[in-house]
Amino acid sequence: MNLDPKTAKPVLDALKQRYSCREFAAEPVDQALIDDLIDTGLMAASGGNLQPYHVIVVRDPETKKELRRLGGGQLFVERADVLLVFVLDWSRYAVYTKQKHAPFRANEQFLHLVISVEDVICAAQTVETCAYLSGLGSCYVGGVLETGAEISELLNLPQGCFPIVMLAIGHPAPNSNHKPVKLRREMMVTYERYQPKTEAEIFDAYEEKYRAVDRHPLPRSEGPREQTLKKLCENLCLTYPEEEAKAYLEEIRENDAFNEAQRRYGIHYGVATIRERSRQMLDGMRKMGCDPLKTLED
Amino acid sequence: MNLDPKTAKPVLDALKQRYSCREFAAEPVDQALIDDLIDTGLMAASGGNLQPYHVIVVRDPETKKELRRLGGGQLFVERADVLLVFVLDWSRYAVYTKQKHAPFRANEQFLHLVISVEDVICAAQTVETCAYLSGLGSCYVGGVLETGAEISELLNLPQGCFPIVMLAIGHPAPNSNHKPVKLRREMMVTYERYQPKTEAEIFDAYEEKYRAVDRHPLPRSEGPREQTLKKLCENLCLTYPEEEAKAYLEEIRENDAFNEAQRRYGIHYGVATIRERSRQMLDGMRKMGCDPLKTLED
Repeated sequence: MNLDPKTAKPVLDALKQRYSCREFAAEPVDQALIDDLIDTGLMAASGGNLQPYHVIVVRDPETKKELRRLGGGQLFVERADVLLVFVLDWSRYAVYTKQKHAPFRANEQFLHLVISVEDVICAAQTVETCAYLSGLGSCYVGGVLETGAEISELLNLPQGCFPIVMLAIGHPAPNSNHKPVKLRREMMVTYERYQPKTEAEIFDAYEEKYRAVDRHPLPRSEGPREQTLKKLCENLCLTYPEEEAKAYLEEIRENDAFNEAQRRYGIHYGVATIRERSRQMLDGMRKMGCDPLKTLED
Repeated sequence: MNLDPKTAKPVLDALKQRYSCREFAAEPVDQALIDDLIDTGLMAASGGNLQPYHVIVVRDPETKKELRRLGGGQLFVERADVLLVFVLDWSRYAVYTKQKHAPFRANEQFLHLVISVEDVICAAQTVETCAYLSGLGSCYVGGVLETGAEISELLNLPQGCFPIVMLAIGHPAPNSNHKPVKLRREMMVTYERYQPKTEAEIFDAYEEKYRAVDRHPLPRSEGPREQTLKKLCENLCLTYPEEEAKAYLEEIRENDAFNEAQRRYGIHYGVATIRERSRQMLDGMRKMGCDPLKTLED
């Protein structure tokens, strides 16, 4: 290693300040720096050194606009100077194994999917880390999974490929630093064995994390209000026995508000919504010749 | 950010030299440094800031021995001074959402599994990167997935948890640096759209990558030889029509050797082996109350 180990400490301290940047300045990012970030990411660990992925660098405004639409609609995606799309890629191995008369069904194996997602993120996270250390801001976009088939078409992906994650990169705008509140360390790390926490400890830790955002008033106007209640009802019913679900919904009506846990898993990541998106993702993967459940059914 | 952006370039250059370290010196790693690495990793991005994971720091020799056995048997796992087990953890949210009368089935959603694996690796990869920059060596062990139920028992994991990856960390032994050969850059990165490669380009790129290890002689003695051929035959038959599979096997017999692609997907990551391990992983997850296919079946 060429680096003086004493340089490491300030790097660690800097990385403790990292944040997902969602507001970018207009100033363009030097292409040579982007290439250097990617080259660094490509040296990240990869299970069996298989490197089953591909990086697509997008700067074209029209493509960014489309990727914003397909990735969940967040404005910063379009405003970022560069989008890196990290793509699972079994297409090259499919060709090579045929040429070498070798077996190959990694694109149809559940374990290979999990490990290849790990490989993709090892590379992406190195890029993210190095971007931050180079003074850039960046933010992951996970919403490419459920629209993977459409994104594959847009980016001309061959069979055996599927988008896993997108990283929006740019120079951070002033005041773009919104560092999220994280859980207390003792909830996240233990020694030698998992140390179960009491219900009270868990409650306190999350209350602390979500204190500032724990009350969401129901919408005032009738339509949106009923829609919100309907969504909460549906997802409560997918979790609890009907009586219990109805009681919780009644509570929400009485409070005229729902809490952050209810917002997260009842609205934003609603059970039914995520179930639907899971199906869309799997359907998209199948369209692209990547069916991770296929060999399970053999 | 506290870091001078000029510091970034040497960091990127150093990270281009990183490698998976599988030989460790006896010298122990300072616990304060390990804690600092983890604290840095905990600030990594997490989808929706859900932080659905937990890190277990293992130094006890008996536990390391067990984790070696359950993680695939590689000697370096036992020899590493510290093992970090990165665990998917829905157990805390399961408690908290109940307390808050909120819906919750993230532990049964395919999309949540994929995104939470991404979250785990964002943290793990930051630790890996910072360990390397601090002069340590480390190596991922992915083999915890198929023995997840046993590892969960060993580490006292509650329902809703499941091990995703393990990172072995220590001071690198002299000559531990075996940097793997990576694919040419043009196979890994393209601009604006995926640029399909010709069959000849793909062939050349992999031949270059695997040139030094492309011939594996069949074992000399009858028993191991027949076993190797049987395994290759089974996996060729799971990929190609029977006639074609038999022809390729005949070719291997004639050459008295198989190639690297055949070793990878016919022996090391054999189709049948990975299918079996995928099933074991899913069974283990179900035992731990994490069934990522459950809501798909609703």
